[in-house]
Amino acid sequence: MNLPLKGIIPPMVTPLNSQMELDIPGLEKLVEHLVSGGVHALFLLGSNGEAPSLSHEIQKELISRTCELVDNRIPVLVGVSDTCMTRTIEIAGFARDEGAGGVVVAPPYYYPLSGEEVINYYESLSRKLPLPFLIYNLPSHTKINLTVEAVKRIREMGAVGIKDSSGDMLNLYSLIEAFRDSPEFSVITGTEIFLPATILHGGHGAIAGGANLFPELFVNLYEASVAGDLKAITKHRRKVMMLYQTIYRVGKHASRYLKGTKCGLSVMGICEDHIAPPLQRFEPDEREEVKKYMEHLSLMQ
Amino acid sequence: MNLPLKGIIPPMVTPLNSQMELDIPGLEKLVEHLVSGGVHALFLLGSNGEAPSLSHEIQKELISRTCELVDNRIPVLVGVSDTCMTRTIEIAGFARDEGAGGVVVAPPYYYPLSGEEVINYYESLSRKLPLPFLIYNLPSHTKINLTVEAVKRIREMGAVGIKDSSGDMLNLYSLIEAFRDSPEFSVITGTEIFLPATILHGGHGAIAGGANLFPELFVNLYEASVAGDLKAITKHRRKVMMLYQTIYRVGKHASRYLKGTKCGLSVMGICEDHIAPPLQRFEPDEREEVKKYMEHLSLMQ
Amino acid sequence: MNLPLKGIIPPMVTPLNSQMELDIPGLEKLVEHLVSGGVHALFLLGSNGEAPSLSHEIQKELISRTCELVDNRIPVLVGVSDTCMTRTIEIAGFARDEGAGGVVVAPPYYYPLSGEEVINYYESLSRKLPLPFLIYNLPSHTKINLTVEAVKRIREMGAVGIKDSSGDMLNLYSLIEAFRDSPEFSVITGTEIFLPATILHGGHGAIAGGANLFPELFVNLYEASVAGDLKAITKHRRKVMMLYQTIYRVGKHASRYLKGTKCGLSVMGICEDHIAPPLQRFEPDEREEVKKYMEHLSLMQ
Amino acid sequence: MNLPLKGIIPPMVTPLNSQMELDIPGLEKLVEHLVSGGVHALFLLGSNGEAPSLSHEIQKELISRTCELVDNRIPVLVGVSDTCMTRTIEIAGFARDEGAGGVVVAPPYYYPLSGEEVINYYESLSRKLPLPFLIYNLPSHTKINLTVEAVKRIREMGAVGIKDSSGDMLNLYSLIEAFRDSPEFSVITGTEIFLPATILHGGHGAIAGGANLFPELFVNLYEASVAGDLKAITKHRRKVMMLYQTIYRVGKHASRYLKGTKCGLSVMGICEDHIAPPLQRFEPDEREEVKKYMEHLSLMQ
Repeated sequence: MNLPLKGIIPPMVTPLNSQMELDIPGLEKLVEHLVSGGVHALFLLGSNGEAPSLSHEIQKELISRTCELVDNRIPVLVGVSDTCMTRTIEIAGFARDEGAGGVVVAPPYYYPLSGEEVINYYESLSRKLPLPFLIYNLPSHTKINLTVEAVKRIREMGAVGIKDSSGDMLNLYSLIEAFRDSPEFSVITGTEIFLPATILHGGHGAIAGGANLFPELFVNLYEASVAGDLKAITKHRRKVMMLYQTIYRVGKHASRYLKGTKCGLSVMGICEDHIAPPLQRFEPDEREEVKKYMEHLSLMQ
Repeated sequence: MNLPLKGIIPPMVTPLNSQMELDIPGLEKLVEHLVSGGVHALFLLGSNGEAPSLSHEIQKELISRTCELVDNRIPVLVGVSDTCMTRTIEIAGFARDEGAGGVVVAPPYYYPLSGEEVINYYESLSRKLPLPFLIYNLPSHTKINLTVEAVKRIREMGAVGIKDSSGDMLNLYSLIEAFRDSPEFSVITGTEIFLPATILHGGHGAIAGGANLFPELFVNLYEASVAGDLKAITKHRRKVMMLYQTIYRVGKHASRYLKGTKCGLSVMGICEDHIAPPLQRFEPDEREEVKKYMEHLSLMQ
Repeated sequence: MNLPLKGIIPPMVTPLNSQMELDIPGLEKLVEHLVSGGVHALFLLGSNGEAPSLSHEIQKELISRTCELVDNRIPVLVGVSDTCMTRTIEIAGFARDEGAGGVVVAPPYYYPLSGEEVINYYESLSRKLPLPFLIYNLPSHTKINLTVEAVKRIREMGAVGIKDSSGDMLNLYSLIEAFRDSPEFSVITGTEIFLPATILHGGHGAIAGGANLFPELFVNLYEASVAGDLKAITKHRRKVMMLYQTIYRVGKHASRYLKGTKCGLSVMGICEDHIAPPLQRFEPDEREEVKKYMEHLSLMQ
Repeated sequence: MNLPLKGIIPPMVTPLNSQMELDIPGLEKLVEHLVSGGVHALFLLGSNGEAPSLSHEIQKELISRTCELVDNRIPVLVGVSDTCMTRTIEIAGFARDEGAGGVVVAPPYYYPLSGEEVINYYESLSRKLPLPFLIYNLPSHTKINLTVEAVKRIREMGAVGIKDSSGDMLNLYSLIEAFRDSPEFSVITGTEIFLPATILHGGHGAIAGGANLFPELFVNLYEASVAGDLKAITKHRRKVMMLYQTIYRVGKHASRYLKGTKCGLSVMGICEDHIAPPLQRFEPDEREEVKKYMEHLSLMQ
């Protein structure tokens, strides 16, 4: 895996059928949709990938199948966050054996942890990880926000980048400043609408859920940002903003961005939209809404 | 298991050795310490039991060994909360096969869920659980506070009680009022100092972490509360309050109550104090502090 | 004013007419209702008294009139919390001149303050206050929770007690323990249903909003608690709990407890129920609900 | 006042002397520093202006003097947020009489309010305000975040813009989108580092605390953003980012941005750095740190 990691990295949804098994034909179509869309890497088993809701068996099957389908065309990153460190190490080893290029690790998300405990956790874990790792900052789920200082220390343990999903642009800017002189360390936003600002200020890319649906749109926005082409940025980001105002607004719970993404893919005929408990796929009327929006968004392209 | 469940139920710590394996001699001593101390049931694999940090293998070994050691003298409850429903059902089945009397289920703790999603989760889960279940309200870890209305609906799905660890006495009082006419449904506090107020107002008991250390003290406080013996309540609760002001105050992170409890048991010679990552046992100076407090508390008895 | 301050202290509502002027006949009736109901002191210009919504002119008029009406039968405490310290000192001076016995001061509620800044604030203020003062802990409004340690330090500056409205019983218990050897310092709960537990554990009283409506009920509950009469406690606290389940539940915003209290007084014919902006009195259908509940509660007596 | 309001609007600090009176010579120098620095308007009595900590007398003196000093060269906006609506209306009337061009109103900040209560508040207030008003969204202080929907409704009541100090860039983007077809309505960020992104996406300006210190820097960054000159943006925003990494980081409490700004102005010889309680100016060692940073920043220009 070339460093720094950069570009558009979809946090891939995990296609499931009604039996809560892997939707294999859906997975095949999804991987081709993304790779042919030009994305720079894949990120499996993040929040969008429903990792915490899936059994270990399905997680492993997903890793194997995806690595096989991607066949080294782009790097595959695997989310290995878990409340149990033994389990994190085990799945990371499995991912390496299947050909993944790196792993992504959020702090354990059950106990409310202090900054010091999180540092100790990464210290202890990093010695046992068989692959390069990205830090995953996701305070809404883990109940802790990693400070710039903490990220610096974890970089010294070997982290190759950070995915910041704090939603806090000032935090993101501070990370970019802090690692301006560490050219191999990636600062990647987890908030897709922050992509142009991230790139314009010196960051590296976006783990963008919407890239599941529209990989080319995000790749175009990334390239326009790298080129500093304000006109093209304005055009593409307008459409990304529309995602927030349409697909991500259907339904009423915090998880609707995930439900909307999976539903949109189903509307496109790419994969099924079943979702593992505790979440549930959209009801028919919500699906109708997504369908209408998808048509509208397609016309914009 | 007789309903309503009541009395003192220690959320048993999981004795671990330095290899992060089950500390078998420690487990044997701990179980005897608790059963002979008069507690009314055991609760394995809660937050105090480090469930989310333990591998499935250790969880199963703990369930088997403990059920065997208890040998039906008192009911054994097993925490089966997990972000993956498949896993919750699997471990509940295992617990039943080993002789457990019930399970305890908190809402899945990764995704921020809405009240409606939590209801749907229990709806779907309750149909597949092979044992009676208690609801576990633990907003500090799960990011959602179950309303009285939600608890009522989950009771209709078969819940036999609730462990409320919100730390909010008004919430606890509201639950007691709401289920005053449901004599088989238990309202149990997860905040041990609330025990006398809980009982005096009509609740059923406490899942009291401190009962790991001092089972008789909590049993005495419970009995004094049931009897309405204010003098005895005052005497015993004074000592419980001392726990908060001593053992639970050593160290500086939110997890110190757990570290202090395990350390205290180690000082008593009952089991080792190793703790699974991401948490860590106390440093020597903190252990010295605990030791001093344990001596002080023993003199109070 | 005799120390420690103890018993039932209603945080008196401020009767207003439709012109947002003081409702003088309402004030007269309310003061008599409370004094003849046996309460131990009055607390003007707290949250229930809408202090922050009232102009300085109305605040002063209220203080003068109430002190005159009470005529030294019981102590009058005046809330002087303000974001501007100059103003706090000015109104405290006015209160002293009119015959008030003490003041109540919460931390300034605009800027998010640190514990140290709050300590400095009380340090600086306490030197200029012309009357004994109670600390007012109200984190939901001031955005800061005063620690036991902070309260200890403010006591050394001269505070004669604390009103704890954190809603956190463990915090209240910790305060009671911390000041067990300071017999002149009062620990008073701001959560009325905590009254019996507060007294049974060694605290001093309650600033109970519901005592605006039912002063005798709260006085009876206080006396039963002091006497350790569990049977009487159970009877009276049942009715207090009913307040939470009826009057305080009408309407839908956080401010409903205040609206419900004022509306109930209006239903009783004691004073009008107008409320200063930004809050508003109940709509007719909510008022009907309150009326129904008031009838029900009256029958319970 | 020409609409839409746009550009750089410093939330002017209020110069105070050691007696907590207005520092008149400081005020004169500060106003000239800002006006000659090219800022587009002034905003008095915001959080940076310590409004809630100041007596009504000082507030009025500040308004009169500043309007006189500015002498219509640029518009003067006055913060009139208060917990008491009567007071808000009174001070707004005073501001109009003295020549202010508009007022800025945050939701009342004492009671936790619902969205509906806030709407009602603005509804009622807007009918009585004698000047155009901007909405002030400041959830960290007011405990409520105004939704886009709420802002739309308040615009219909006459608001001419919003200052968004939520710190949430996605919220800001959503506001810009929502009012893209309302050319007279200003969307202004209260987070100064968001200035270029705000302008590039179609917003109108920044109420930038740092512009107290470096008005030209912010004016330059604004103009580069309007021109889409990425090279100049990069250069200027680098220095703004330095403010966050230097001046705004001195000290340890949330209020340090304000203390640092006032201290920096004092180091520049513009005005004194006294601060009204509950806040306090920096200690000598902190002042030394600010001084060092100010020198460093001056060299950057």
